[in-house]
Amino acid sequence: MSLSFDREQTELSAQEIASLKEMRTRCAKRILLSTSLAASGHPGGSLSSLDMLLVAYGMIKHDPRQPRWDGRDRFVESIGHISPGVYSVLAEYGYFSEDDFLCGFRRTGSGFPGHVESIVPGVEWDTGNLGQGLSTAVGMAQAFKIKGKDNRVFCLMGDGEHQKGQIVEAVRYAHKYKLDNLTVLLDRNRLQICGKTADVMPQSIGKLYEALGWNVIRLVDGHDYNAIFKALTAAYTNTSGVPTIIIAQTVMGKGISFMENLAKYHGSPLGPDLLADALKELGVENDFDAWQQRRNEPVGTNTIMEPKSDYPQVQGGEPILYDVGTVTDNRSAYGSALLGLAEANNVAGKSPVIVGISCDLEGSVKMGGFHKHSPSAYFEAGIQEHHAAGMGGAMSTENLVTFFSTFGAFAVSEVYNQNRLSDFNHANLKIVATHVGLDVGEDGPTHQCIDYLGLLKNLFRFSVFMPADPNQTDRIVRYIATEPGNHFVGMGRSKIPIITTEDGAPFYGTDYTFVPGKADWLRRGTEATIITYGALTQASLDAWKLLQDQGHSVGVLNMASLLPLDVDSLFEAAETGPILTVEDHHIETGLGASVSIALMGKGKSVALRRLGVSHYASSGKPAELYAEQGLDAASIAQSMLELIG
Amino acid sequence: MSLSFDREQTELSAQEIASLKEMRTRCAKRILLSTSLAASGHPGGSLSSLDMLLVAYGMIKHDPRQPRWDGRDRFVESIGHISPGVYSVLAEYGYFSEDDFLCGFRRTGSGFPGHVESIVPGVEWDTGNLGQGLSTAVGMAQAFKIKGKDNRVFCLMGDGEHQKGQIVEAVRYAHKYKLDNLTVLLDRNRLQICGKTADVMPQSIGKLYEALGWNVIRLVDGHDYNAIFKALTAAYTNTSGVPTIIIAQTVMGKGISFMENLAKYHGSPLGPDLLADALKELGVENDFDAWQQRRNEPVGTNTIMEPKSDYPQVQGGEPILYDVGTVTDNRSAYGSALLGLAEANNVAGKSPVIVGISCDLEGSVKMGGFHKHSPSAYFEAGIQEHHAAGMGGAMSTENLVTFFSTFGAFAVSEVYNQNRLSDFNHANLKIVATHVGLDVGEDGPTHQCIDYLGLLKNLFRFSVFMPADPNQTDRIVRYIATEPGNHFVGMGRSKIPIITTEDGAPFYGTDYTFVPGKADWLRRGTEATIITYGALTQASLDAWKLLQDQGHSVGVLNMASLLPLDVDSLFEAAETGPILTVEDHHIETGLGASVSIALMGKGKSVALRRLGVSHYASSGKPAELYAEQGLDAASIAQSMLELIG
Repeated sequence: MSLSFDREQTELSAQEIASLKEMRTRCAKRILLSTSLAASGHPGGSLSSLDMLLVAYGMIKHDPRQPRWDGRDRFVESIGHISPGVYSVLAEYGYFSEDDFLCGFRRTGSGFPGHVESIVPGVEWDTGNLGQGLSTAVGMAQAFKIKGKDNRVFCLMGDGEHQKGQIVEAVRYAHKYKLDNLTVLLDRNRLQICGKTADVMPQSIGKLYEALGWNVIRLVDGHDYNAIFKALTAAYTNTSGVPTIIIAQTVMGKGISFMENLAKYHGSPLGPDLLADALKELGVENDFDAWQQRRNEPVGTNTIMEPKSDYPQVQGGEPILYDVGTVTDNRSAYGSALLGLAEANNVAGKSPVIVGISCDLEGSVKMGGFHKHSPSAYFEAGIQEHHAAGMGGAMSTENLVTFFSTFGAFAVSEVYNQNRLSDFNHANLKIVATHVGLDVGEDGPTHQCIDYLGLLKNLFRFSVFMPADPNQTDRIVRYIATEPGNHFVGMGRSKIPIITTEDGAPFYGTDYTFVPGKADWLRRGTEATIITYGALTQASLDAWKLLQDQGHSVGVLNMASLLPLDVDSLFEAAETGPILTVEDHHIETGLGASVSIALMGKGKSVALRRLGVSHYASSGKPAELYAEQGLDAASIAQSMLELIG
Repeated sequence: MSLSFDREQTELSAQEIASLKEMRTRCAKRILLSTSLAASGHPGGSLSSLDMLLVAYGMIKHDPRQPRWDGRDRFVESIGHISPGVYSVLAEYGYFSEDDFLCGFRRTGSGFPGHVESIVPGVEWDTGNLGQGLSTAVGMAQAFKIKGKDNRVFCLMGDGEHQKGQIVEAVRYAHKYKLDNLTVLLDRNRLQICGKTADVMPQSIGKLYEALGWNVIRLVDGHDYNAIFKALTAAYTNTSGVPTIIIAQTVMGKGISFMENLAKYHGSPLGPDLLADALKELGVENDFDAWQQRRNEPVGTNTIMEPKSDYPQVQGGEPILYDVGTVTDNRSAYGSALLGLAEANNVAGKSPVIVGISCDLEGSVKMGGFHKHSPSAYFEAGIQEHHAAGMGGAMSTENLVTFFSTFGAFAVSEVYNQNRLSDFNHANLKIVATHVGLDVGEDGPTHQCIDYLGLLKNLFRFSVFMPADPNQTDRIVRYIATEPGNHFVGMGRSKIPIITTEDGAPFYGTDYTFVPGKADWLRRGTEATIITYGALTQASLDAWKLLQDQGHSVGVLNMASLLPLDVDSLFEAAETGPILTVEDHHIETGLGASVSIALMGKGKSVALRRLGVSHYASSGKPAELYAEQGLDAASIAQSMLELIG
C-alpha cells in the first residue's frame, strides 16, 4: 500500500496512523526476514529509523512509477547500512515488490545490495562510507537553489556517523549558503557498533548544530508518527534561510522486545530461532523457510536501474589560441576556458549550466573570471575539501556541469575516497587541479602532488588528462565540459612555453581536437621515443633538441590522455625502438607504470627506462627540483643516450 | 638571545617585556626578509602568530642545544606555512643561526623548507596539509598520558584551517581522553587566502569548542605579552581533565602598517620597495641586497636533523602455530598475535610499549583480547578515521609501537593523505587492516578495499604485507612490531584454511621467519608460475591441484611481501615460463602491475597474464564475487591453461 499525506493538515488522521502502524509491522517483518535470510546486514538501525522513513515517504513529493521523475524531492540515506529498512519502505510504497527485495537482498548480482545503491528504484545515492551523505544532500539542495526549483532534500543520518569530521564541513556549508530546502533526520538511537555513542565518543549533536547556526527540532520520541509528521512538515515549509535538523530520540531494534537498545543488533541479524520469536511478537506469519527456498532460484535483476544519463547539452565555445611567445601558465588557460564555457552556456535569465567550486583558492586556480561572470554559479566551500568533493559529485548528477578546482594535493590525495564515492555514483565531476607535481616548488612535499595518476587509476570510471601547454589545456577543458563522466585534468603552477611543431608553429592550434586515448607525436624519430606529458613536455622537447644536435633521431610522444592510455601509439613507439618515459609523478605509479603494464600485456619486448619522482623532493624552485630528480632536459637526454647507447 | 620565564610568576617583568619587543623586531625583520629573499612564502600569518610563538618558547620546557631532549614539551605548528615565523623564533632562541635560516629558506636541499619540517631543529612535525596538526598534537599528548609523563603539548593553529572537519574529530577525542596536557593556540586573525573567514566560511570557533567540552580562554589582544603569558601559564598548569584552547584575536601582518589586516599578505611576500618601507617602519637596517648575495652561495645543510630513531626494543613473543584443520580467519590470528605482543611487552607497573587504536570496530578487527589485557594502551577513537590515522602516526614517533586497525576501506582509502603525512614524518605506524578486498562480501563496493596496494605504492616509506593464512599472519604481525617504519598488513574477513606443504604440513610452521622482500614457493613447477598472495592463495593452490590433475606442473609463489617485492623470485619464475598473477585487488594497480613493472625494468620477456578485480563488484558472498571476476580456482586454472596452451 501507499500513503500520501496532506502537508497542510496539522496532524495525521487516526486512519493514517492506523495505516502507518500496519505498514510498520510489514516493514519490520521484512527487515528481520531480509537480514536473517542473508545471514548478514543491519536490522537494529533499520528498526530505529523505520518510523521516520515511513512518514517521510508519505510526505515528500515522489512517484514510485517514475523513480527519476524530475519533480521529486530527494531522500539521501547517509547511513547506507540501513538498507533493509529503506528497501522495506520503498517496497511498501510500491517501488518494487516485497518479493524482489526478499529474494534478492545481499545476493551477488541482485538489485538489492548490502548498502543502499542507486540501482535500487527510489534510492538516490550509493552510500556505505559513513559521514559523506550530508555532503551529497547539500549538493542536491544547492543544485535546486541554483535552478530556482522548490524540490526539497532530506538526509537520514545516524548518530554514530556524526563523529565523522566531514559532516561538520557540510553543516557549515549548508548554513553559509542558506540551504533551507535541506532537512536532516537524525536517528538518535544512542548506540553504535562498540556500544553507547556517549561512551565511544561523547558529544552533543544538538549543541554542535546550534553552534553552527542550524534550526534544531528535537523529538523526544522518534517513533511518534504525529510528532515526526509535524516536524517534517515544519521543515518542509521552512523558508527561513536556515537548514533544519530533526533530532529524533529512537530505540535501536524498536518493536522487538529482546532487540531493543542492544548495540549488537546494529550489525547482527537474528538466527532462525530468535527470528521466530520476533515474528511471533510482531504477530505475523513465519515464512522464513519458504523465502529461503525462494532464494535458491536464480537472482532477479529486473528492478536494477541504469545510471542517470541526462547530462546537459554544453557548447564548447570558441577555442582560444595561445600563440608562440605567449607567457602564461596552464592555470590561466583553464580560467579563460572556464570563462568561455560560462559565456557560452550560462545565459542571463536562465539557470546556469556550468558551475564551479573551490576551496579558498579562487585566485590560485584562476576561477576569478568565472566567478565574476557567473556569481550565482560559483561556490566557495572554504578549506573543506572532503565536503566540497562530495558535494560536487552530487551536484554533477543534477544536470550541472560541475568544475571542482583546488591544488592537486587537496583535490586528489586528500579526498580520494570522496572521489571514489562519486565514481560509484556515475558522477560527472570535473576536477581541474592546479599546482600538481614538483612544479609546485617551494611549498614542499606536502603540496607536491605526485600521485594523482597512481590514485585515480584505482577508480574504474575516472579519466585523467594532463595538458602540455595552454593551448592543449584550453581544448581539454572544453572537451570535458561537453562529455559526461568523471574527469581529472591536472596542471602545474609555473608559466610554460607554447608547445610547437618543428616549424615553430603552435602544435595545438585551433584545429586541434582533443580525443581521449589519443596521444600526439610532437616529434617523429627513428631510433627511440620519449613518452611524456604535462609539465615535462617542454623539457623532453629540449632533450630531443640536445639529442638531435648529437645526431640522434628520437620521437617525442605527448601522452596527455593518461587514462585511457593510447596503446596504439605506445605500440608504435615500441616498434621503433627503446622507450624513455618522463613524468612529474611518482616513478612507480604513473605513466611509466602504465606503459610497463601495457607493453607486458601485449608481450612486447622493448628497452624501457622510466624517469620520474623517485624520492620525496625538497622545497625549492621547480627547475632545481627537477634537476635533482634527473628530470631536466640534460638528464633526460643523457638517460636516452644511455638507453640507446 | 633567549628567554626563560618563571612560570610561577603572575606576570612578566618590564624587562622581559622589553626583551620580547626587541626579539619581535628582529623576528619580524627575518620574516619579511626571508620571504622577500625567497620571493615566496607566508609573511602575514607569521606576523600575526609571532607574539604567541615568542612567549610560548620562553615558557615551555625545551633545550635548543638538545632539540630532541626527552623532557621537552612539544610544540606542533599545524599551520605549516608560517615557517618564516617559526624559524625566526627558533633562531632567536638559539636552535640555529639567523644566517642559516636566511641563506637557506625555501632553497632546494636546504634545511629550511617552505612548510615546517622536522629536519629543522626545534620543529616536531612536518605539516603543510591544513587541519592535521591537532591530531598530531593529540597523539603526542596521549603518549605522555600513557607514559605518565608531565610533558605538555602545544598546537598553534589557524582560524581558516578550522574549517577542516578532521579538527573536530581531534577536538572530540581530546575531550574524551581528558588530555588536559594539551593546549591549542589559535591565531584568530580572521583572514584566509580568499578574504575574511566570516565570508569564506562563517563559524564561531569558540562556540564549537565549548559545545565539545573544552576550556576556552579568549584573548582580546593576541599581541599582548602579559595576556599571552597568563593564558599560557594557566593552560600549562591545567590539571582539570579538560584540554584548553586559547583563542587569540590577532592582526594579519601585525606591525607593518600597510600589511595589517590584508588577506593578500597571507601568501605574498613584499617586493624590494615595499620591503624597504617595512624595514624602515621597523627601524632596522635594510640589508636585503647583502643577503640576496649570500644566497648565491651553495646551500647550507649543516642544520638538517636526521629522523628520530629511538624505536623501542620489542619482544616478538612466542609464535602461535595454527595446525592443519584449524578453522579461523587471519583477523583472529592478528588479535592473538597482538595479545601475545602485549603479554610480552606491556608489563604491569611499567608504561606500555604496544598500543592499539581502533574506530568503533574493536570486535571486527579482533582487538578485544589486547584491550582486555592492556586497557590503558587501547584507544577507541570513534568513527573518526582521519583523526585516528593522524594521531596514530604521531604516537608511533613517541616510542610507542602503535597498531591502528579498522577495515581496509577506512584505514587506507579514506585516510590516504593522513598516512602520507605520517610517511613524511618517518612514523612507525602499524596499520593492520581487516575486511580487505572482495572478501568483505555482502557489504558491497564501498567496503571492498581493492586499492590498498595501489594507494600505498605512492608513499616511499610504507611496506605492504598480505599474509596468506593465520600462521603467516602471526609471524608478520610479530615482525612489524619489532621493526621501525610504517607497515601495512592487510587481510580479508573470511575464515580460511591453513596453507600447507605438498605433504600436508603447515607451510608456515613455527620455524618460519618472515622476511620483507622474500616470497615463498608454496609449490615448485616446471612449466609456469602462479604468483599470488592473501585471500586467493588457497584458490591458487586449488588451481595448482586442478592443473596437476591434468598433467601440468606449475609453481605457486606466495608474494606476501608486496612492497618491497621479491624480484629475485619473480625473475626465477620468469626463467621458468609464463606467469599468472592472481589477486583480490584492482587489476591495474596491484601485484600484476608491480610484476609488469619489475619485469619490464629488467627487459624480461615472458608471457604474463594478470587476474584481479576488473570492475566494481556487487554485494554478495565472497566466493560468488570471486567467481564473477574470474578469481575462483577453476577460472585460475583455466587462465593458466590458456596461458601455457
